Amino acid sequence: MDQERFVTIEEMEAATASLLENGKKVGADSWQQRVKNQTPHCGFGEAGTCCRICAMGPCRITPKSPRGICGCDVHGIVGRNFLKFTAGGAATHSDHGREIMHTLHQTKEGGNYQVKDPEKLIRIAHEWGVETEGKDIYELAHEMAEIGLMEYGKPFGVQRFLKRAPEHTQELWHKAEIEPRAIDREVATALHMTHMGCSSLPEALIRQSLRSGLSDGWGGSMMGTEFSDVMFGTPKPVDTTANIGVMEKDMVNIVVHGHDPSLSEMIVYYANDPEMIALAKSVGAKGINICGVCCTANEVAMRHGIPMAGNFLTQENVVLTGACEAIVVDVQCIFPALGPLSKCFHTKFVTTSPIARMPDSEFIRFSADNAGENAKSIVKMAVENFTNRKTDLVNIPNQVSHARVGYSLEAIVKVLDGVANSQVDTFGTTKPLLECVTSGVLRGAVAMVGCNNPKVRPDYAHIELMKKLIANDIILIVSGCSAQAAAKAGLMDPVHAKELCGAGLKRVCELANIPPVLHMGSCVDISRMMILASELSKDSGLNISQLPVVGCAPEWMSEKAVSIGNYVVATGIDTFLGVDPYVKGSSEICDLLTGEHGVKDWVEANYTVETDIEKLGDLMIERIEQKRAALGI
Amino acid sequence: MDQERFVTIEEMEAATASLLENGKKVGADSWQQRVKNQTPHCGFGEAGTCCRICAMGPCRITPKSPRGICGCDVHGIVGRNFLKFTAGGAATHSDHGREIMHTLHQTKEGGNYQVKDPEKLIRIAHEWGVETEGKDIYELAHEMAEIGLMEYGKPFGVQRFLKRAPEHTQELWHKAEIEPRAIDREVATALHMTHMGCSSLPEALIRQSLRSGLSDGWGGSMMGTEFSDVMFGTPKPVDTTANIGVMEKDMVNIVVHGHDPSLSEMIVYYANDPEMIALAKSVGAKGINICGVCCTANEVAMRHGIPMAGNFLTQENVVLTGACEAIVVDVQCIFPALGPLSKCFHTKFVTTSPIARMPDSEFIRFSADNAGENAKSIVKMAVENFTNRKTDLVNIPNQVSHARVGYSLEAIVKVLDGVANSQVDTFGTTKPLLECVTSGVLRGAVAMVGCNNPKVRPDYAHIELMKKLIANDIILIVSGCSAQAAAKAGLMDPVHAKELCGAGLKRVCELANIPPVLHMGSCVDISRMMILASELSKDSGLNISQLPVVGCAPEWMSEKAVSIGNYVVATGIDTFLGVDPYVKGSSEICDLLTGEHGVKDWVEANYTVETDIEKLGDLMIERIEQKRAALGI
Repeated sequence: MDQERFVTIEEMEAATASLLENGKKVGADSWQQRVKNQTPHCGFGEAGTCCRICAMGPCRITPKSPRGICGCDVHGIVGRNFLKFTAGGAATHSDHGREIMHTLHQTKEGGNYQVKDPEKLIRIAHEWGVETEGKDIYELAHEMAEIGLMEYGKPFGVQRFLKRAPEHTQELWHKAEIEPRAIDREVATALHMTHMGCSSLPEALIRQSLRSGLSDGWGGSMMGTEFSDVMFGTPKPVDTTANIGVMEKDMVNIVVHGHDPSLSEMIVYYANDPEMIALAKSVGAKGINICGVCCTANEVAMRHGIPMAGNFLTQENVVLTGACEAIVVDVQCIFPALGPLSKCFHTKFVTTSPIARMPDSEFIRFSADNAGENAKSIVKMAVENFTNRKTDLVNIPNQVSHARVGYSLEAIVKVLDGVANSQVDTFGTTKPLLECVTSGVLRGAVAMVGCNNPKVRPDYAHIELMKKLIANDIILIVSGCSAQAAAKAGLMDPVHAKELCGAGLKRVCELANIPPVLHMGSCVDISRMMILASELSKDSGLNISQLPVVGCAPEWMSEKAVSIGNYVVATGIDTFLGVDPYVKGSSEICDLLTGEHGVKDWVEANYTVETDIEKLGDLMIERIEQKRAALGI
Repeated sequence: MDQERFVTIEEMEAATASLLENGKKVGADSWQQRVKNQTPHCGFGEAGTCCRICAMGPCRITPKSPRGICGCDVHGIVGRNFLKFTAGGAATHSDHGREIMHTLHQTKEGGNYQVKDPEKLIRIAHEWGVETEGKDIYELAHEMAEIGLMEYGKPFGVQRFLKRAPEHTQELWHKAEIEPRAIDREVATALHMTHMGCSSLPEALIRQSLRSGLSDGWGGSMMGTEFSDVMFGTPKPVDTTANIGVMEKDMVNIVVHGHDPSLSEMIVYYANDPEMIALAKSVGAKGINICGVCCTANEVAMRHGIPMAGNFLTQENVVLTGACEAIVVDVQCIFPALGPLSKCFHTKFVTTSPIARMPDSEFIRFSADNAGENAKSIVKMAVENFTNRKTDLVNIPNQVSHARVGYSLEAIVKVLDGVANSQVDTFGTTKPLLECVTSGVLRGAVAMVGCNNPKVRPDYAHIELMKKLIANDIILIVSGCSAQAAAKAGLMDPVHAKELCGAGLKRVCELANIPPVLHMGSCVDISRMMILASELSKDSGLNISQLPVVGCAPEWMSEKAVSIGNYVVATGIDTFLGVDPYVKGSSEICDLLTGEHGVKDWVEANYTVETDIEKLGDLMIERIEQKRAALGI
């Protein structure tokens, strides 16, 4: 095992330290410093036992004050906070999906946005019972967009995509009364239930948390993913690079950051415009280098092989290099700190969405109408900013890893077709993967997702858990900031990463020519994982909860992550968290989420929260082995 | 002035004290005790400077830690909290409206729910451009319900009812980009904007707060009000009684509490069922006495003259009388404390909505299908519970006031028609009222609304402000818990309340045969006030902001109240609050809400926050006189 092929967490931390030194020269603030200022955190907030739902308070639960002024007990307070947190995440993810649907509604032949995967559009149309015969693809796209947008607000019925789940799963949802209706309605219901003087019964609050989560994972997020594929192409394996060293000293560096590919796709397009490249050369640069941060990085990496500069907690690092001409953002997980930080350097901090307005930024409002024009002007602004770079402040740590990304479900199935035995197997199924699992060559799979959080040593949990799991012949499918952690560390290296695997997984990697950690996309793309789990269930005849598969978010931090957790659990996949979701203050809520007789009774899966990362890994392996044992494999 | 005709705040407090003594005998907890336990409140929470939006925190802003871990400053944190608070309220009110629309969709000839005001339904249908000719009224009702439900989720366009506003107001909304789209979408947008790493720009957060509020006041709440009238009848002036003494020692007392009239209408119906009355007599009671608490009280008082036992902070009092056989609740503002409290007495605490599930309650799920059946079984349960009453615990303070309630806009216009000069005036307008204002007989009007809050001496602010205002010839239109405070104190007494008025208002009361404090309904009915203001504007040719009219919520406590405040201000009505909406931690947010160049620039009105209630009254009078002076009247 050649460890030198991989970037260690210590090496990454050393690079960050050198960037922070760079920042010090110009008086830059950093999250590392702000964490110090904000520590210790409020114990009530961390335990979820503080209530600010009405203006009689805030109330805090202690042994001497066991109820809020309205009489709500600690379980109601913690449960309401958990549901509100979920609703925030579900609304956010789903609104991303809505933007995609509105963009789809604006697609046209030769326009800024086009249908790049008509086959997928037609496939979904058939699934939704929409006539496709004799329709122009854009006519169909607009019709599908309108139907999809109605999933947000239809007065009657449940989400269309629920039918993709195995029948058993659908039955569980029906019985538990957690089938999501219109997506926005589940958000509104959550806020109504958590209003002062509404629900305080833990069970009701947790059921709605699952339902609201499902409206995200099987509703808004799934539409976001599927129709992004329709417009921008369904990802296929592509080689790229990752880590801060992807920034180029001699080029104009434009960093795209956020979540919605509608913006970044346009930026990528205009960065390749000969006029812009010529302009870059005219100002003394060798060209234009686009790189990504956070989920936008995942989107453009998977579809264009654009390098990934970093993930959530390295977003400040790209500016600290002193070589970032512009950081262009859309929505979600963008540090407001980028405003003041960019002012310490020459960097232009460009906000583009009315959803994410920030002080100290240049706001260039982006919409389907003006997308081309505005993207071009942003690229131009960045190029022209190259001459403002202070060369003595340029410090790009030399850390780059190779990564193969782009494992959409379609891509995985294609890989599996490549290893199927054409004599006996049906193509287009997950059966070859199931055979590896049944035979024990692979022990199981972990879907690892989520953010960074300073409460965990950043990226450490992602990387160390992945190493441990692949060494135990457990294959990883990853998304979001977890994916970038893997890529930065070299765990998606198509040539070398297999060296870290157990013998079984190594053989699979060689046979299928894949890395042991499969990049499945951004955080909305966790919906891809739900479809994969459903396909595995249908192809195996097993319930999802019986599969030796678990979910893990070791460093999560956002409301979206809790929404995701809820839909992953509700889909029947045991989920392991490295950070407590502000619920430890209520034994009843903890029991419902993590015990044997709460969500587990309803959906056959539950949560495990373990802040000791080493233990978290052991618990996942143990759970996978338990599931194998139960199946007798 | 005969003060003895009125119940003073001290007398009410004495009654509460005697009820608390009653509670002590059985070990009952009380909000008065819980307030002591919860005081002092967390200063960060009260200032709005604590952020729990992601799991990196919670973060708290202090001089030494001026930014959260993400880099968000205090203005972003306070602004996001304010927007989230608004969204909670808008979702809640609007979801009430949605339930009404779903109930409308279930109306049928001879069914549990019927169309009682077909004229109003047809009027709104014409307004919405819906063909009515040749349609059965139920066919029309169902069509209108479906159209109304689409207002929650339509992918394109803005709220239908916006067109009711004066053109100038509509233009302001358009220019400020705060015209609400689908109601639920504004909620989702608010949650998306306040997600970690989205908006932290104060202006953007406050604009969305107004927009989300408008989606409530001119969307969900307005539909809730209008279609409640369609189903249950548009309120007309009716005489009733108020205060704890409306409970009857010798009768089965059923208290209805919450907000949605769909439940209480059915309970009222079955309490009049001869079979139930006979049953009551068979168990030794003289009959069945329904009385109301909170907005449900407003709903049934206005439509059936049902007595009002109390408002928000007297909800425990009804149980403490020991004479409450059942407290039957639907949604919102229901103390979870009623669970354990009812266990101290024989009272049945019956929850009925999946939106408001509480521990220690009997849950009888209510829906349009089973409404009759379930209402009857609840009434029966209450009647049968009469024999469980512990007579030595019965203590009903002898406090009852007379009140005339039911001043819907339609009722007010009818009253005005009664005093119009048939020789020169057009009927069906607000012109007679405008003439009183122009001539100075009335100085102006205050719309007083909102809850109780222990941070203000309960009911004191409502009652003392009203007394002060009517003494200054300012007419009051009131709703919600403010209305009940007025009624309890005798300020809606149709005979005597005028004695507290200045000479001008007294003359108006005599001429029009109205009390000086007009009961306009529940908290969703504040939409009625918006239509009244619009009519006054159209009839006068003045902008709403020019009218000598202000809004006031001196004792507000709920998220709904902040949503209301936002739509009242956005409608052009200056709004005065007696409790700070958790924003005092940010000078920028305070400036936007209360200064000369924030919301005031956009919508020609703003907030005033003043916790000194005496001063609050002076400021309102001053503002009204300023507006008069500006008009030269």
